[in-house]
Amino acid sequence: MPAQEDADRKSNGNKTSRRDILRNGSVLAGSALAGAVLPETARAAGEADKNLPPNVPEWMQVPGADVSSEPYGTPSPFEKSVIRNIPKNLKQYTSASVRTPLQDLDGIITPNGLFYERCHGGIPTIDPAEHRLMIHGLVEKPLILTMDEVKRFPSQSRIHFIECSGNPLYTAIYGKTASDLVGLVSCAEWTGVSLKTVLNEVGLKPQAKWVIAEGADAAALTRSIPIEKCLDDAMLVYSQNGERLRPVQGYPLRVLVPGFEGNMNVKWVRRLHVTDQPAYSREETSKYTDSMPDGKARQFTFYMEAKSIITRPSGTHKIEKGFNEITGIAWSGHGKIARVDVSVDDGRSWASAQLQEPVFTRALTRFRFPWHWDGKPAVIMSRATDESGYVQPTFAELAGVRGLNSIYHNNAIMPWRVADTGEVSNANVKA
Amino acid sequence: MPAQEDADRKSNGNKTSRRDILRNGSVLAGSALAGAVLPETARAAGEADKNLPPNVPEWMQVPGADVSSEPYGTPSPFEKSVIRNIPKNLKQYTSASVRTPLQDLDGIITPNGLFYERCHGGIPTIDPAEHRLMIHGLVEKPLILTMDEVKRFPSQSRIHFIECSGNPLYTAIYGKTASDLVGLVSCAEWTGVSLKTVLNEVGLKPQAKWVIAEGADAAALTRSIPIEKCLDDAMLVYSQNGERLRPVQGYPLRVLVPGFEGNMNVKWVRRLHVTDQPAYSREETSKYTDSMPDGKARQFTFYMEAKSIITRPSGTHKIEKGFNEITGIAWSGHGKIARVDVSVDDGRSWASAQLQEPVFTRALTRFRFPWHWDGKPAVIMSRATDESGYVQPTFAELAGVRGLNSIYHNNAIMPWRVADTGEVSNANVKA
Repeated sequence: MPAQEDADRKSNGNKTSRRDILRNGSVLAGSALAGAVLPETARAAGEADKNLPPNVPEWMQVPGADVSSEPYGTPSPFEKSVIRNIPKNLKQYTSASVRTPLQDLDGIITPNGLFYERCHGGIPTIDPAEHRLMIHGLVEKPLILTMDEVKRFPSQSRIHFIECSGNPLYTAIYGKTASDLVGLVSCAEWTGVSLKTVLNEVGLKPQAKWVIAEGADAAALTRSIPIEKCLDDAMLVYSQNGERLRPVQGYPLRVLVPGFEGNMNVKWVRRLHVTDQPAYSREETSKYTDSMPDGKARQFTFYMEAKSIITRPSGTHKIEKGFNEITGIAWSGHGKIARVDVSVDDGRSWASAQLQEPVFTRALTRFRFPWHWDGKPAVIMSRATDESGYVQPTFAELAGVRGLNSIYHNNAIMPWRVADTGEVSNANVKA
Repeated sequence: MPAQEDADRKSNGNKTSRRDILRNGSVLAGSALAGAVLPETARAAGEADKNLPPNVPEWMQVPGADVSSEPYGTPSPFEKSVIRNIPKNLKQYTSASVRTPLQDLDGIITPNGLFYERCHGGIPTIDPAEHRLMIHGLVEKPLILTMDEVKRFPSQSRIHFIECSGNPLYTAIYGKTASDLVGLVSCAEWTGVSLKTVLNEVGLKPQAKWVIAEGADAAALTRSIPIEKCLDDAMLVYSQNGERLRPVQGYPLRVLVPGFEGNMNVKWVRRLHVTDQPAYSREETSKYTDSMPDGKARQFTFYMEAKSIITRPSGTHKIEKGFNEITGIAWSGHGKIARVDVSVDDGRSWASAQLQEPVFTRALTRFRFPWHWDGKPAVIMSRATDESGYVQPTFAELAGVRGLNSIYHNNAIMPWRVADTGEVSNANVKA
């Protein structure tokens, strides 16, 4: 397991390194004594158990369900609580968002059924045979493309996150769960065509500086994308995690601008208007700007800055004394995550976590940190550093620069409080 | 896009390199002339279109569906034909398989709803709170673990394929679609604990040579795994593509032995019996052995050898003249795919395809090859080479070594015939 070994080496700076724990054969108890130490709850084989030999559990005594019973599969009924996190009591849900249940998920791929959603005019039902993409403006050969034509271009697949720029809103750091706080981020393998390839096909005129993407939803959501991004890693995508986009993710076609704020990844895209200036649309003037302390607003703050959160243990979880793996996700719109540090003493000291290899650019990165919890109250948190050297700030540091008038682009450290009972809660909320 | 550039460099040996096509701005038409050449079907923007400005399509004229309408999302109704490929008219489906619709998928991640399935005693419904894993035999400290305890071990996530050893059966090379032929392979990001970590916890005795894994299904499916694999990259996994395993994939816990034949990845695993010899179970004696020409049978042929298939265009597809990207998947139980060659002239000449980076070990690898189809009948096929240097054989080559008595482990090249109408069909079937 070379990736594992490599990751172990990288985590040598940990106070309690994972390798030491494994070497001592005491994973569950976390003791540093030589020889294995059983967790208090672990039982020796040989004890009576109704579901182990010589007994046979009830589900082995009858044939199971037909393998043909689900042409399109669904989760276990025992996982029915693992669903999108839908806000309660909103007046309407056509301009609203639902969050990924980050605290229940592993790895870096978000399954399509649990990908976060943000819509501005509800979810249109689009017949792909009727959908058109028009590319016009400052181009040599304006085109109208069908979906079949879009799919004839050379394809590519990439793993990238998408994150809403209000994840969380400045005023929303008091949620209970990891999903309540930063559940407006998800990650998938996207397949489509490089936007550069399509723009090369129509031929850009020298004055082309922006591409204005318009969605075919009732909001006609419109965002201006700098031409440099369009000619870099931007894509037009039609598949997500292997299958066609789900309706809420822009079926049959969306823009993907890796690392840029969520709504710029225009869903149901029907028009790319090449221009020499931005559209100054609603979503880049009255919304999605950052109000600064001097009363002015920053506009076009496209990049989602480096961020991380511990997803297990996290708010509403309950842990037991002994070994607990701390795990979470980190990401940056500027590229790869370079390191994640974890503190288990309210930010007084930090040690670097292990990153799951391979680390992708502009993708979720899974981090892990071995922790022996002694049963005393603690505050735990993670801090991401990306390959540009940028370090995730505390909320106080962020507010020190940006003030308190901002709404979007809150990438502050999110601390969790662990009570002596093992109950985990949001440390931004006073105990 | 460094990965793209790198892939472009690697494909320099192509007769028609992708870079040349893009440089000449003639992706759709495939012409080598300077300047863009429109496909016959592409229309210039400005032509009347009921779904483009100044018109507004019907789905923009009313608010779309609520974003809260699906707590767990599902595909577009227009994709209802993209389901598992279920064989018709079997007597029963408790010991049967359903296939991934490879010809409809992109990238390397198989969505959980479309992952292939093979069950021997149906799909049990297991309450994870009642599930137990017993580890016993030649160990120092036999244990009974609950799922909560399994999840307390340090975790890891890896992207790997699983493939049924009868994919296709020796006698089943006459299917219509890519799914009919090799749809018993899928790929996911798996999360769980290294089996080595768990075995270290119980402490192996020096005589330990095999681990016999038993499933909690009605078939009590049992397979013997060499200890070397258990201490290498084998895992006990509880999550697939971020969320908990689906019931048919072994919920709540399965073995993952990357690169080994599918049924060794024992689902619903309830027992790991550490022994000094194999179990010689049904699934490694009367089934899943390879009958050789001399009447003897090879046993314990664990590794799935290098294989590939073109998934687009493939059987039942219809293509048009001009540029067509050939794309497909390749994989090897022995490690990474090193190269994939494509032939468009029935195997007379070959050129290397572009591999989507990064290439994972023991995972599906997406390959792509630009092709200008001139409208004449053709036979196209792909040939994988893995990092061990092993080259995927033709069926004739395979049969030359293995004879025709085999049932499993058919990794032959699968050729597709393209008729002058553009219709694609299985070239193993006489036209």
